[in-house]
Order: sequence, then C-alpha cells, then structure tokens
Amino acid sequence: MSARAGVGVVGLAVMGSNLARNLARNGHTVALWNRTQEKTTALVEAHGHEGDFVPSEELADFVASLTTPRCVIVMVQAGPGTDAVVDAVAELLEPGDMVVDGGNALFGDTIRRTEALEAKGLHFVGAGVSGGEEGALNGPSIMVGGSDEAYETLGPIVESIAAVVDGTPCAAHLGTDGAGHFVKMVHNGIEYADMQLIGEAYDLLRNVAGLSPSAISEIFVGWNSGELDSFLIEITADVLAQVDASTGQPFVDVVLDQAGMKGTGTWTVQTALTLGTPVSGIAEAVFARALSSHRETRDAVQAAYGTTSGSTVPVPDDVDAFVEQVRRALYASKIVSYAQGFDMLAAGALLHGWSLDMGQIATIWRGGCIIRARFLDRITEAYAADPALVSLLSAPVFVEALQGADAAWRQVVSTAALSGVPTPGFAAALAAFDGSRRDRLPAALVQGQRDLFGAHTYRRVDREGTFHVMWGEDRRETEV
Amino acid sequence: MSARAGVGVVGLAVMGSNLARNLARNGHTVALWNRTQEKTTALVEAHGHEGDFVPSEELADFVASLTTPRCVIVMVQAGPGTDAVVDAVAELLEPGDMVVDGGNALFGDTIRRTEALEAKGLHFVGAGVSGGEEGALNGPSIMVGGSDEAYETLGPIVESIAAVVDGTPCAAHLGTDGAGHFVKMVHNGIEYADMQLIGEAYDLLRNVAGLSPSAISEIFVGWNSGELDSFLIEITADVLAQVDASTGQPFVDVVLDQAGMKGTGTWTVQTALTLGTPVSGIAEAVFARALSSHRETRDAVQAAYGTTSGSTVPVPDDVDAFVEQVRRALYASKIVSYAQGFDMLAAGALLHGWSLDMGQIATIWRGGCIIRARFLDRITEAYAADPALVSLLSAPVFVEALQGADAAWRQVVSTAALSGVPTPGFAAALAAFDGSRRDRLPAALVQGQRDLFGAHTYRRVDREGTFHVMWGEDRRETEV
Repeated sequence: MSARAGVGVVGLAVMGSNLARNLARNGHTVALWNRTQEKTTALVEAHGHEGDFVPSEELADFVASLTTPRCVIVMVQAGPGTDAVVDAVAELLEPGDMVVDGGNALFGDTIRRTEALEAKGLHFVGAGVSGGEEGALNGPSIMVGGSDEAYETLGPIVESIAAVVDGTPCAAHLGTDGAGHFVKMVHNGIEYADMQLIGEAYDLLRNVAGLSPSAISEIFVGWNSGELDSFLIEITADVLAQVDASTGQPFVDVVLDQAGMKGTGTWTVQTALTLGTPVSGIAEAVFARALSSHRETRDAVQAAYGTTSGSTVPVPDDVDAFVEQVRRALYASKIVSYAQGFDMLAAGALLHGWSLDMGQIATIWRGGCIIRARFLDRITEAYAADPALVSLLSAPVFVEALQGADAAWRQVVSTAALSGVPTPGFAAALAAFDGSRRDRLPAALVQGQRDLFGAHTYRRVDREGTFHVMWGEDRRETEV
Repeated sequence: MSARAGVGVVGLAVMGSNLARNLARNGHTVALWNRTQEKTTALVEAHGHEGDFVPSEELADFVASLTTPRCVIVMVQAGPGTDAVVDAVAELLEPGDMVVDGGNALFGDTIRRTEALEAKGLHFVGAGVSGGEEGALNGPSIMVGGSDEAYETLGPIVESIAAVVDGTPCAAHLGTDGAGHFVKMVHNGIEYADMQLIGEAYDLLRNVAGLSPSAISEIFVGWNSGELDSFLIEITADVLAQVDASTGQPFVDVVLDQAGMKGTGTWTVQTALTLGTPVSGIAEAVFARALSSHRETRDAVQAAYGTTSGSTVPVPDDVDAFVEQVRRALYASKIVSYAQGFDMLAAGALLHGWSLDMGQIATIWRGGCIIRARFLDRITEAYAADPALVSLLSAPVFVEALQGADAAWRQVVSTAALSGVPTPGFAAALAAFDGSRRDRLPAALVQGQRDLFGAHTYRRVDREGTFHVMWGEDRRETEV
C-alpha cells in the first residue's frame, strides 16, 4: 500500500466517522481504522462517495497509508481507552509524526500524554472538538493545544473543516500541551450555566407568568433576534414548540425531569476550585442537574412539604413587562457566567503557562460549538479594546448592559424567591456581581472568626502586617 | 530505655504539642518526638509538670519507649510530609503496632496509606481532630477511621481526651480506612457554610437594617440562647463586640475583607462533585472566600459600577421584625446546608463501603469542634426516630422549622436581591430547598436540549424506555 493519506482517523463511532467525512468532503485523503472492522466498512459503504477514504483492517497498514509527517486523529471515549489507543498508535509512528486526541480528555491527562509522546520524538496534540455529531460533520469549533510545530501541519487541516463565521474559521492554536482541552472544558462548563439559566427563565415564564410552552417558544424566537441570539436560545424555542405525538401534550411535559451529565461540567468546577476561581454559575448548574436526578430525596421532600410552599405571588398584571424583566435577568446572569468562565481561563493560563488569547477564544466559539452566539462578538471586542481587561464585568459594553438590566434582574430574583421557583443560577450570578462590586464584604468577619478559633491571623485595612488578637487572654492585638 | 509510654506523639507544633499535653493530663504516659529537638525540649520544659512525658531525640528511642502494641499519633502538616514521617515511623514498628494520622489528610491519601501499612502488618488510622489548638488541648472532637481492631487500642485513648457532652465523649470509630478523615472533611465544609451564612446575616443587619457591630453583637448573644445556640454564633458576638484599640473603630471594620482558606472546603466541594451530591451552600461559601481575595477584580468592578447599585431598599420600618426574619432565614439556610452535608456523608459511605452512623456523627460534633451546636441534638434525634431517613429536610423537626421560617426566608432573600447585599448562601439554600420540593423541574427542558444537540436521549414520565426525537428530520420520537 502506498502512503497517500494526508490525515487518518482512529475510532469511527459517530464523532470519528463524522469528522472523517468532514475531512474527506474538504478534499483530504483520509486513512481510516477502527478496532472492529465493521464500522470502517460501514462508513466506506455508506459515505465512500463523499471523498477519498483509505480504510485499513490492520493498524500497521493504516499507519503505512499515511504520508509523513503522519497526522493521526484519535476519536475515542476519553479515559483509559484513550491511553491504550494512543500507545498502540505511537508504537508504530516515527519521530516527527503526530497524534491528535479529539476526544473530551481531561486537560491534565493531555499534559501527561504530551510529555510521554514528546519523549519519543512524537507530537501530541489535545484538540477540543465542540458541536456534537452535527458539528463534527458540518463544521465544529476546534480548540487546539500542542506545539507550534505540530500546528504547522495540523492547522490547515482543522481550519479546513471547522465552522466559519465572517470568513474566520472557528479553529485555532490556543497554547501548548493541555490548553486546547482546558479551553474546551471551560466551554462545556459555560454551556452548563447557559442551559441552566435558560431553564430558569423558562420556569419563571411558565410558573410565575403562567405561559404555555408554545407561548414561551414564541418568546424565545423573539429573544433569538436580539442580544440573546444564540444556538441554545434557538433550540430552546424548538424544544418548547415540540408536541408529543402520543399524548398531544407539550413535549417538555412528557420528558422526565432528571438531567443527565457526562462529566465535563463537574471537571470544570473541580478545576476552578483548584484555581481559586469562583464559577458559581457553572457550579449551580451542575448541582441543579445532580439534584434533579436524586429522585428519592425529591420524593421525600415533596411528600413532607407538598409543592405549594412559597407560591404566594400572583400572576404579574403586566405579563409583557415580566417577560422583558426575565429576558434582562437572563442576559445579565449570562454575562456574569461568561465573566466567571473567562476568569477561569485566565487563572488556568497563569498556572499552566499558556498565553491564551481571550478574544481569539471568543472568536472561535462564535460558530460550530454549542454556546455559539452573537454575544461572543462583544467579548472579542471587549478584549480587543483592552487586552489587559481584568474582568469582563468591567468592560464598558457589559457595564452598560448590566446597568440596564440591574433593576429587572433584582426584581426577578426577588420574585423567584417569593414565589418558590428555584433560580440558583440567576441568584448566584446576582450575588457574584454584588460581591464583586461592593467596597466591603463580610469576609472581614470571617477572618475575625478564623483568628479567634484558629489563630489564622488577619491583615488590616490601614497598615501592612499580619495580626492576631489574644482572644483567650486580654484581647490585645499582636503583630505576628 | 524501658518501654513504658502507652502512646506517642510525633510532630510537636502547636496541635501536636497540645494533644500530647491533653493525653498527659489525662493520665497517659506520652512518648514525644519531633524532627528538631528544640520543640520537644520546649514542651517538656514548659509543661513537663502536667503529666508523664518520655521525650526522645532519636526516632528509634521514641519507638523503643512505647509499650506494645505501639500507638504513634502523627501530627504533621498534611501532604507529602505526612508520607515521609509515616514511612519513617512504620519502618521501626512491628506487626500489630499502629500509626494514627491526626492531621487534616485527604481521605483518599488515608485509604492509600492504610493499604500500604496493612501490607506490612501494621494498623493505620486516619483520625480527624477538630477544635483547633484550644480543642486539641482541652478536648477536641475526634472522628476515627481504621479497623475495629485498631480502635480497641485507640478508642480508650481518644475517648479519654475528647470533649464530653452530656456524659458522652465526642470521639468515635466511624468506619474503615478513610472514613474518619472523610467525615472531618465534610465537617469542615459545613463549617465554611455556617460561617458564610453568619457573614450574610451580619451584612444584612449592618447594611439593610443599618445596625452597628456592637448592636449586632448583642443580637447574636440573644440568638445564642435560642435554636441557633452554637460556638460560631457565640464567637461572632465576641468578634463584633471587639473594638480596635489603635483606631477606636469596630474591630470588624479594620480587618481586611479577604478571607483565607486552607483547602478542606475546596476538597469537600470537589469530592461532592465526584459523588454527585449538590452541596451548593458549601460551594458558595468557598467561592465567596475566593471572590473576596480577588482584589484586582473587585477594584476593577467597583470602579466600573460604584458601590451604590441596587441600594434601593430603605431601612426597614420595623427593625426588630427584620432582625427576626434574618434569624429565621439563617436557621433555615443552616438546616439546608447540614442536609446537604449529611447527603454527602451518605453518598460517600455508599461509594466507599462505610456504614456511617449519621446520628453518631451528629453526637460527636456536639462538643470540641468548630460547628458544635445545640442544633446537632435535633439531627441525632431525627436519625434516631428514622434511621433510614432519606434527607434531613424531610425529618419532622426540620419540616416544622422550615415551614415556620418559609415566609421570612423568602422575604430576606428578596430584600437582599433588591438591596444589593450579596447573599449567595441564603439564596443557594432557598433554591436547593425549592428545587427539592417541586414536582417538576426545568431539568426536563435541559434533557430536551441535550437530546436535540447531542442525541443524549431522554426518558418519559409515562412509560419506561429511552427515547430520542429525530430533530433534524421529521421530529418523530424513536425508542432507542
């Protein structure tokens, strides 16, 4: 077999298969290998006409079919399975070749794998691919880590298959080793927060304003033509418009209200905790999904209290005004959760030595991925205007937006609390905003408590130094 | 040197030194060793009269001074340092001897160390010691893991030095290997939540009701004689009563409002995320401390918005009524955060095969530790009344308490949102309560979104099975 494929894909489940088709459709000759031959055969039979595929039954033949430097994209389930496949492939490669992990690997694993492969003279690239099955086929957002040298080969390939917005491909080299998977992880965390906030907005419109799913669907269609314009708002309108054929009920009412998750939201929050970055919006979203799935607890609590607690607020007189309040609260909360996500990107970059370009990240999230939104242009612009921006919250465009939303946002959180509709995301975002903007926080009291029971010391507002009060004795302050 | 010490302490910084003194005062002959001889000498010189100490300069002499089976309590900084000390001690011990780690080790490390020492025929016991320096000296709460056999020797020792409440020592064997450190970690997480909630109550009384720290101190004194009676409420009154000598200002106003932390709160939330247990109260407390320390972000956001946003609520006409609302909101939020903590204990027990006795845990938290409170009796009673209790929220005593607090709690969260005082803990607790008690959650919408963009499937409320809508085609439902 002559070496003629410019890129190879290992792992031909839906994501890998769709990515291979995307590559072939864009003119690449694509080598194919899967652990079981059936998937390879099925792909070529169904889609062989879409481009130039070079299937192999043996991994060695697959490697031999690639031109050098070889570029092997691995699309398998994240975890130990990835190690097995990467090791098997690496065994057959030569110095200068590259393995690209396009799965949802934890970025720490990517850092480890990069070191292991570089020790063998191979390149390893962790690339976060967002957009689900449909994105993989028609244009995902691709967040690429690894070395500059690897991106010289890989860049033209991924940029040719990525989504394109305003002429710019939604793929970029973001930093070394784990940078791509780190950014993809934070993307997914933001996605969790976005979805939770939308769920809260829906819940308020349904259960405070008393609107039907189809009416709310129309409201989301309207919102999708304004500053909330995004893929998730668009599909929410679709989901809410759906009618269940077997019952004639709104689809959303026949779906069991227990949300699943696959782990990237959890990783995001765990990593943010290590970084010391508050990502309360993402955390509340992950917790809300977990809570929804604790059926036994929900049943016990519901039996104990009934469902009527707190429902003391009448339907608002002016429904349209309430809808607009909810829209503003949703937009304000979304801004805070993106600000938290970008804070986390900055903290991760600092710890891991990546020089992440925040504006570029917002740019490549504009298409292909789940959180794609018009809103991201504003983030890019904010960082373009001030590359040293400390927080998205202090960018003029978002200051204006939050000031405009302030009264409505507070009113919605207040109404939710009084009416018994849980809005952990809205409330956490508002608390994070208020916590950030106040001149004094009760953290001073917490420091006082810590000094009293644990001699943890404190600093003062009026002079340098570290101090401790002799609480158990004469309560004098001492400098330590 | 003859073997005559019944217990030994390695690591004589404040915690170890105080624990050794506590042991000696309670009639134990205590072997002492520290990496640097100075601390050993200083302890014996200052406190030798308090009991029977056997100091050694060499670790081998220390081990030789212990009667068999030897019981060595290691009190060193958690982390790699612990491994070095444990290994050095273990090297000199004989089968049947035991090493007790009394530091704040991560429970996973304790599980690992237990396996390593058991392979050598030694016992390893992870024991969480709470109560700070003062507790170590005068009676801590001690949460003990490890084997039944180890506790036969260790139990009488720890029970003799622990705090005692109503005749019951605040020390107990809770489960195998990492159980003691796991429970101690959750204790610390709950402590974070308690402190945050108290901070929010203070902030509301100060900045909504307009009360002075000394007036708020008196309110806390009053609260400490009711259902909130606890160590943390008591010391809050002390901290708020303190006047800074150098400025004449309230102490709390001269303390820099950036709260520190040492990691156990972070571990608690990270572990809860792995367990799938929502601990939003603890997470918001950890995030609030992190936020307080991000000085640069706070400065930028404050400069952009000023501090006046949202402050539209006048001082309440009836301050006493507002104070009582805040008290009820604090108590309700505290109940939710304990319910979350106990949920986490149950989830950890299930995953790690520990049969944790929840009532017993509440019992040994009544004295010695930071979260000691009258309230814990109610938790013990709740589990005594129903050992299979699914959630503390459904225990009759807490149902009654939350129903009594319901209106005030909602009013306080609403007022905080409107007035711009951040109450992430109160709001998260209320959202968690409302999320748990509602019959339908917007998680159904989230599942619909996930099915649309990722073919993640959903279940139905009306029949078994897993389903998917062909969103991109004719939108028919298919069973998968």
